[in-house]
Amino acid sequence: MPTIDAVDFFYLSMPEVTDEADGSQDALLVRVVAGGHVGWGECEAAPLPSIAAFICPMSHGVCRPVAYSVLGKRLESPADIARISVDVAYNSMDLLQAPHTLSGVEMALWDALGKMRGEPVWRMLGYDRSFAKTPYASVLFGDTAQETLERARAARAANFRAAKFGWGPIGRGSAEADAEHFAAAREGLGLDGLLLVDTGQIFLEDVERAAARLPAMEKAGVLWFEEPFQASAIDAYAALARKGSKVRLAGGEGAHNVHMAKQLIDHGGVGFVQIDCGRIGGIGPSKEVADHAVAKGVTFVNHTFTSHLALSASIQAYAGLKDHVIAEYPAMPKPLALAFTANHIERDADGEIHAPDAPGLGIEVSADGARPYLQDVEIKVNGQVLYTTPAL
Amino acid sequence: MPTIDAVDFFYLSMPEVTDEADGSQDALLVRVVAGGHVGWGECEAAPLPSIAAFICPMSHGVCRPVAYSVLGKRLESPADIARISVDVAYNSMDLLQAPHTLSGVEMALWDALGKMRGEPVWRMLGYDRSFAKTPYASVLFGDTAQETLERARAARAANFRAAKFGWGPIGRGSAEADAEHFAAAREGLGLDGLLLVDTGQIFLEDVERAAARLPAMEKAGVLWFEEPFQASAIDAYAALARKGSKVRLAGGEGAHNVHMAKQLIDHGGVGFVQIDCGRIGGIGPSKEVADHAVAKGVTFVNHTFTSHLALSASIQAYAGLKDHVIAEYPAMPKPLALAFTANHIERDADGEIHAPDAPGLGIEVSADGARPYLQDVEIKVNGQVLYTTPAL
Repeated sequence: MPTIDAVDFFYLSMPEVTDEADGSQDALLVRVVAGGHVGWGECEAAPLPSIAAFICPMSHGVCRPVAYSVLGKRLESPADIARISVDVAYNSMDLLQAPHTLSGVEMALWDALGKMRGEPVWRMLGYDRSFAKTPYASVLFGDTAQETLERARAARAANFRAAKFGWGPIGRGSAEADAEHFAAAREGLGLDGLLLVDTGQIFLEDVERAAARLPAMEKAGVLWFEEPFQASAIDAYAALARKGSKVRLAGGEGAHNVHMAKQLIDHGGVGFVQIDCGRIGGIGPSKEVADHAVAKGVTFVNHTFTSHLALSASIQAYAGLKDHVIAEYPAMPKPLALAFTANHIERDADGEIHAPDAPGLGIEVSADGARPYLQDVEIKVNGQVLYTTPAL
Repeated sequence: MPTIDAVDFFYLSMPEVTDEADGSQDALLVRVVAGGHVGWGECEAAPLPSIAAFICPMSHGVCRPVAYSVLGKRLESPADIARISVDVAYNSMDLLQAPHTLSGVEMALWDALGKMRGEPVWRMLGYDRSFAKTPYASVLFGDTAQETLERARAARAANFRAAKFGWGPIGRGSAEADAEHFAAAREGLGLDGLLLVDTGQIFLEDVERAAARLPAMEKAGVLWFEEPFQASAIDAYAALARKGSKVRLAGGEGAHNVHMAKQLIDHGGVGFVQIDCGRIGGIGPSKEVADHAVAKGVTFVNHTFTSHLALSASIQAYAGLKDHVIAEYPAMPKPLALAFTANHIERDADGEIHAPDAPGLGIEVSADGARPYLQDVEIKVNGQVLYTTPAL
């Protein structure tokens, strides 16, 4: 019986980390060895607390380290992975960081299982085929409208038909100042480009301040208004949705379990649900949200701002959904995010991307590429080493 | 201007930690030094990941360590504490563990501020006086109904007029087997005792399995049915509430922000909302939930299974609410939970408890009592020590 024999964590970081909202500045890579196969995954999460959540001593019966529900368990089928997810949710219910830690592990389990079976993950999820996705360049607003204009032109020049602008100064000043950025983004992208806006929770739960941005977004032909509010502020989402703007709401990247995402779909009035596979617990929970989105007429979108390993993992859940075509694509990641995989998900001649048609996640990790970014971590309790960075 | 000059964490643990759902087996004690005063708090959380969330390197602009929003900041008024909470929610939005870490820090800030001003925390929260609470003994179901009967008799013999039985075998076997435990608890407690039941998320989101327990609970005169489901499974709560049983639902201990607790109140159909001050972000968020509960006709209850420091912190938020009288009281904690405070919240002649009428939280930490349980922790990245257990 193939069992999960090892789970190792590798904390990678750029030499300098800035205060930009750029999640590709570090990475927590996960390696699983099961049944003689190696699988890889990535937590979209703070590396040190996530490692600690895997190896910490038990606090009590339902505050156990994630390792307890994973190491030594059977890995023969998708049902084994689902059972591990249920076990972690229960055994680690009081360990808040657990879902972020599990996410990378769970991806790695799918990758290892796929290699064992010679099947891509999307097929193991029940899809007969995978459909092309239209990638949008995910970039940050400039500090000035002029800078935003230039970034939009750069996205267009790089052949992206869709672009999402996020964070930066939006919501920090007046609605008029923000309007200039929306117009600049539209101008740079061209009239036929798909324009998306992400405000990164800046309005907290202030519905009126968020609503004040809607007219300028409508005017600029923005398709979606992403993360106006805090991840759990469902009622604020619902109130903004009731304003009835043509601009649809998008959100969900902060969901760390399926319930949170379902609430956003069922009660938050979003038109697009964006799931970060590296936070929600991995691929299985992402697929459950995709199924629910289909049932409720909401469009599923991946949330990915890091590596192509994370990108592959994040599109598996909706690879087989023909009508859910938009995909986030890390257009300008930091060098580390590109360096630690040997292959990448490139756009085809039509500018579209595809989930790899290869066993597992279809992404090969490059140890040589990762090594320059590897952080040497050691965690000791009472002189005993609970974690030290393993050989890569 | 008084500033927050130091925040130190102390990980305490029993020599042996069992798999009981007993949260008093370890503790994460927080010491804050601000304006020349020392304040104490306690995270109800896995110690290692919580420490890591305070000291970890920044991953990006909104995945910063909790320390970033706390150290060096002004502490002169409750508004300063509220601002810190807003800052942590934003600056650490992608660091899942952050609210658990902040909870103990935030309590310690209130404690220090109260000492600075010579005022109890409940007064700083706007209450003119504090009202007596009726403590319930919080104990675990026995492995057998006979054992449950004995524990109920022990609670009554210890002069508790209310007792909550939790966890153990409930929900793991048949509804009939559980019914015997409910009846045994009622028999041991006596007909006039307040009987509460806690099933610790055992039914995940299975409404029918949970509902199957309601008739026996009604027969045993159970006042509330606590945590049938996972903390975020609001729709399952709502569905169970719609069954219309006389037994009211209770939940909320898993809320790690105010939104989650409000959803349970507004959409989950609970009659009692139970807030763990050591998880939701501390005393300020707890008070916000208490205000919301009052507005919605739901009863606020503390959730406390650890020390009397945590107990004092957790009753501040509703100390001034005359009609919200039930309080969780750790009746049989492990020795460490009693050892690390020099004073305790004892029951008065009427068997009731009171929030201390003393500056801050009114609980003195005993370094001598804590020291035997202190765990020596060291976290290093690239040879640099980011955390080592400080002198106590």
